[in-house]
Amino acid sequence: MNKTHIAFMNRVLNLAERGKGRTSPNPLVGAVIVNAGKIVGEGYHQKAGEPHAEVHALRAAEEKANGGTLYVNLEPCCHWGRTPPCTDAIIQAGIVQVYAAHSDPNPKVAGKGIQQLEEAGITVNVGVCETEAIKLNETYMKHVKTGYPFVILKTAMSLDGKIATSIGESQWITSEASRQKAHELRDEVDAVLVGIGTIFSDNPDLTTRLPNKKGKDAIRIVLDSHGRTPTSAKIFNPESDAGVIIAVTPQATSNNVALLKIADAEVIVIPANEGQVCFKTLMETLGARGITSVLVEGGGKVNSSALASGVVDKVMCFVAPKFIGGHEAPGVFDGKGIERLIDAPELERITITQLDRDILIEGYFDK
Amino acid sequence: MNKTHIAFMNRVLNLAERGKGRTSPNPLVGAVIVNAGKIVGEGYHQKAGEPHAEVHALRAAEEKANGGTLYVNLEPCCHWGRTPPCTDAIIQAGIVQVYAAHSDPNPKVAGKGIQQLEEAGITVNVGVCETEAIKLNETYMKHVKTGYPFVILKTAMSLDGKIATSIGESQWITSEASRQKAHELRDEVDAVLVGIGTIFSDNPDLTTRLPNKKGKDAIRIVLDSHGRTPTSAKIFNPESDAGVIIAVTPQATSNNVALLKIADAEVIVIPANEGQVCFKTLMETLGARGITSVLVEGGGKVNSSALASGVVDKVMCFVAPKFIGGHEAPGVFDGKGIERLIDAPELERITITQLDRDILIEGYFDK
Repeated sequence: MNKTHIAFMNRVLNLAERGKGRTSPNPLVGAVIVNAGKIVGEGYHQKAGEPHAEVHALRAAEEKANGGTLYVNLEPCCHWGRTPPCTDAIIQAGIVQVYAAHSDPNPKVAGKGIQQLEEAGITVNVGVCETEAIKLNETYMKHVKTGYPFVILKTAMSLDGKIATSIGESQWITSEASRQKAHELRDEVDAVLVGIGTIFSDNPDLTTRLPNKKGKDAIRIVLDSHGRTPTSAKIFNPESDAGVIIAVTPQATSNNVALLKIADAEVIVIPANEGQVCFKTLMETLGARGITSVLVEGGGKVNSSALASGVVDKVMCFVAPKFIGGHEAPGVFDGKGIERLIDAPELERITITQLDRDILIEGYFDK
Repeated sequence: MNKTHIAFMNRVLNLAERGKGRTSPNPLVGAVIVNAGKIVGEGYHQKAGEPHAEVHALRAAEEKANGGTLYVNLEPCCHWGRTPPCTDAIIQAGIVQVYAAHSDPNPKVAGKGIQQLEEAGITVNVGVCETEAIKLNETYMKHVKTGYPFVILKTAMSLDGKIATSIGESQWITSEASRQKAHELRDEVDAVLVGIGTIFSDNPDLTTRLPNKKGKDAIRIVLDSHGRTPTSAKIFNPESDAGVIIAVTPQATSNNVALLKIADAEVIVIPANEGQVCFKTLMETLGARGITSVLVEGGGKVNSSALASGVVDKVMCFVAPKFIGGHEAPGVFDGKGIERLIDAPELERITITQLDRDILIEGYFDK
């Protein structure tokens, strides 16, 4: 692939990334318009409901878009959503060539955007930086293809896989740099999920705290089969405008449910699976209402049920190079575990990053 | 530091490394003789009891050693051991200058070698590549300074810290490349140690199996408080000439001890610590008899007792990026573990290596 195209597409990806955590349920999209070898307009999708990247770039380029080339990481949309179709704007502006990293799997687009541009006489090339572009929008891609949110299981543990000591001390196993990164993650996802056990043991805020930047709080979700979350819990922080969802099973008493609603929680009732909120059904329900990404920050029980449900896409293990030991100290996964090694879920596409003293091991469950 | 000196010292270190696993209880030593800017002789200590590195290099240089400079990673010896003092040979050969990476902490040398050379009119410079040279001989340094062997705790585990599944399946958690590296480790150390639990569950050979190289078996040591190691165990492999040591407590019956001796094991009786072989006393005993390095390949119990004894110097965790889970699946450390995070033993000087799909995390307990 031509180096010039790659360079412009890398610029597109950098622009797209600026929208991280703000565009859901839309994808991250950047756009660059080039005329006579020079960038004449740039833009990115800043927030759901606001203009798409292409429109920003076309507005910036003004009449210089005429006869120009558009670089965009995703196939331009051809349908009326909350904003008009981008294809129309591209055609009207006199763009003669389009480079898109990949086509949009959204059934409302799915090649129809490309087709419309081609029918208008525009040359369309698909595939520049495709792998990088797909990774950038892994959340969107999962959601639009499957209806489920992209699920990240995040854990902070010792090198021997413990998430607390035998007497329950867990603050802090990992170092400041790891905890900072965890807050950045909350800023990027739609929702963060814990179990009722974490509410009782840690009573977390689950808000996003970033040092030099205004973070966005994610929707706080609690897996709470009996609806026992105390209304005094910190997640009901009135200073955060992100909502609280309590996922209960039909076993929860109407009294508990009523109390939670008074505390301003949204209560959703999910069928039970071995007495617990069925993780898979919960994810399906969240996906259906436009939640495209969920960060699981659970204890051993929630982590196990997430893993067993088969909906986890990515794992991020923040590992402190220390040992806690002890048979009774809680591990990252509780429950029965696997019996045969051949059944062990294995991470692919591993990346390793050193964060201060800690080691961040990330990987994917490729299905 | 002058680049030329560093280059010659790096050559010295490379030569020294060739003796790995063969020189114990002696250090790894390499030597290079330079005359008129050119290497005129090289050598390394190949095996305990055989000539030292300096002697090999002097022999290779012949009369070109006269007026030359000697590079050596360790202060030359000045005492009669199994071979004559190197200082005499250096002086006699007409060497005019010596660069040594560091002085020898062995009380029989400890600066006296340098002093002898200086008294003979030779200029001695100490400190080129000191850090690298000390790391190369970390085993020797620990043993000669403290009397204890250098103890490496090696474990093969899943990312959640499990060393087997809930039904005991452990072969193989890690990949071929990791297991290969573990055999290379056995080739380098004096002894490899397991607990009686590993004998019962895995019945390992504990021999060194290397694909394209003749490996050296390490002495096999079993922590076995009651002396219950079956005489049919594979460690009594008659094809291996490395010895077997069974460490028992005074609780072991004389009948068991007699049986083990018939099977050609050496039985050593070590005081009990909470009913188990006292790890620290065992290490002291092994160190006293010239065992300079021990590779602990234990299960959760042996690992815990090694860690608690405070004699572990280095940890090598071979981590497979998979999850086993399960509260009952054995973890890398058994026992009580720590209660307060502040008491968690923490690794320093971490290095991370990817081995096929696995991640090797190595670190030191700096005391």
